[in-house]
Amino acid sequence: MTPTTRAEHRSFGGRQGYYEHASASIGGPMRFSVFLPPRADTAAVPAVYFLPGLTCTEETFPIKAGAQRAAARLGLALVSCDTSPRHARNPGDDAHWDFGLGAGFYLDATEAPWTAAYKMESYVVRDLVSTVESSFPIDASRRGIFGHSMGGHGALTLALRNPGRYASVSAMAPIVAPSRVPWGEKAFARYLGEDREAWKAHDAVELTAIRKFPGEVLVDQGTADKFLERELRPELLEEACARAAQPLRLRRHEGYDHSYYFIATFVEEHLEHHARALLA
Amino acid sequence: MTPTTRAEHRSFGGRQGYYEHASASIGGPMRFSVFLPPRADTAAVPAVYFLPGLTCTEETFPIKAGAQRAAARLGLALVSCDTSPRHARNPGDDAHWDFGLGAGFYLDATEAPWTAAYKMESYVVRDLVSTVESSFPIDASRRGIFGHSMGGHGALTLALRNPGRYASVSAMAPIVAPSRVPWGEKAFARYLGEDREAWKAHDAVELTAIRKFPGEVLVDQGTADKFLERELRPELLEEACARAAQPLRLRRHEGYDHSYYFIATFVEEHLEHHARALLA
Repeated sequence: MTPTTRAEHRSFGGRQGYYEHASASIGGPMRFSVFLPPRADTAAVPAVYFLPGLTCTEETFPIKAGAQRAAARLGLALVSCDTSPRHARNPGDDAHWDFGLGAGFYLDATEAPWTAAYKMESYVVRDLVSTVESSFPIDASRRGIFGHSMGGHGALTLALRNPGRYASVSAMAPIVAPSRVPWGEKAFARYLGEDREAWKAHDAVELTAIRKFPGEVLVDQGTADKFLERELRPELLEEACARAAQPLRLRRHEGYDHSYYFIATFVEEHLEHHARALLA
Repeated sequence: MTPTTRAEHRSFGGRQGYYEHASASIGGPMRFSVFLPPRADTAAVPAVYFLPGLTCTEETFPIKAGAQRAAARLGLALVSCDTSPRHARNPGDDAHWDFGLGAGFYLDATEAPWTAAYKMESYVVRDLVSTVESSFPIDASRRGIFGHSMGGHGALTLALRNPGRYASVSAMAPIVAPSRVPWGEKAFARYLGEDREAWKAHDAVELTAIRKFPGEVLVDQGTADKFLERELRPELLEEACARAAQPLRLRRHEGYDHSYYFIATFVEEHLEHHARALLA
């Protein structure tokens, strides 16, 4: 659907914009953000989609990550999105910061009442891409996807679940095995039901055993991240990729935590990772 | 006073910290932020002080400006502060977003009831510098100062009013002539009284006529800034500097607004301006 403009700001010779559109999958309005590099003035540019983490919105990454400078230099568009529907309210959807509003987990819910609006995979993969590629000078032939924490889970699973849709993928401090950690168990039980077999299709570690991503996966993780051992567990992805011969570059960064200070420090290297695939 | 640590985050090989200390000038607690570049692990580094604009806090610049990368590269510490006392409450201090809380205008108030706590010039020039230089590996022989909007006014006036205190100064979208624009008239009448002669000592355009800064002043201004004609009026500084033979590099940037997207775009060039003076 044609987006309406909420705000646009000149940034690094390009433009940081905030938009709203109607999503057929979600059944209501969704907000997203687009940074266009200077190169987009004269040519269609590839876009990298950033999926934010729990509680964040489409504004968090553009405000806090400082990614526009590198994107302007590389000639990449940056697209970010919200973390759940906002218009559809369900009982208890704001009772937990890690479930419901702001915590859509980038999947299509199959359990009532969430199944009506919580179709975040369809939203990101279909509706958002469709609007962005028809409304902005974005090259529809090449897409990258990355994200942080819950959004890192989203990036890894959407890239693995939708072959050919994304040419590059990376993640920062991702939830790699939601089926086996408290955040994921809580969300998956409510969105997907109690049958744990159904969860595997939305778990990057489980997906790695059956699907290969055609390219190296880049993952950064801070060693001082307070969620590292309980929720993130990157060693599970490391083991799964080794078993599956999936190329993975997992980097552990001494002293870095779960914040956007960590993201800002390494976002340029993530964009360079995507640029190698998207601009080749 | 020895600061207490509120939070510290690894960032670009250095450390972004948030602190609180007791300020003798203010008569209460004040919060500030310090970014230390990697070089500070082994040597004292010069600091550049960033004064934020109306409504901002010590967190705004570290979160939104994306300045840590360039500061890490150049070997500069970044210090930012709050925009007013927060502990001392006066009637009506939260009735206006451009006066009272979040709007201290970086001067020592002379009118009751503000004079008791609103001593932001003394705070920035004395208390903040003293705490920072005694608590962190900061080189006390060389300081730079810059700021945005109300903080640009602060940077220009504090640099001109305190000869020898700052070796470099710059400003982004500064209020250059507060005596002649609505924001400044409103604040100065209440903080300094109705005698407009007293206002001149806190007005960069007026100060330029009687004090010279020993070095080039860098000012950036976006042409799409909605406050440009009514509140900022950089042409008044341009004229005053020309009359006084004060070296000024005033750059007008097509299409940029008053936001941190503007600041983020040009902050690296500001830090390079300061580095030329501080690291020479």
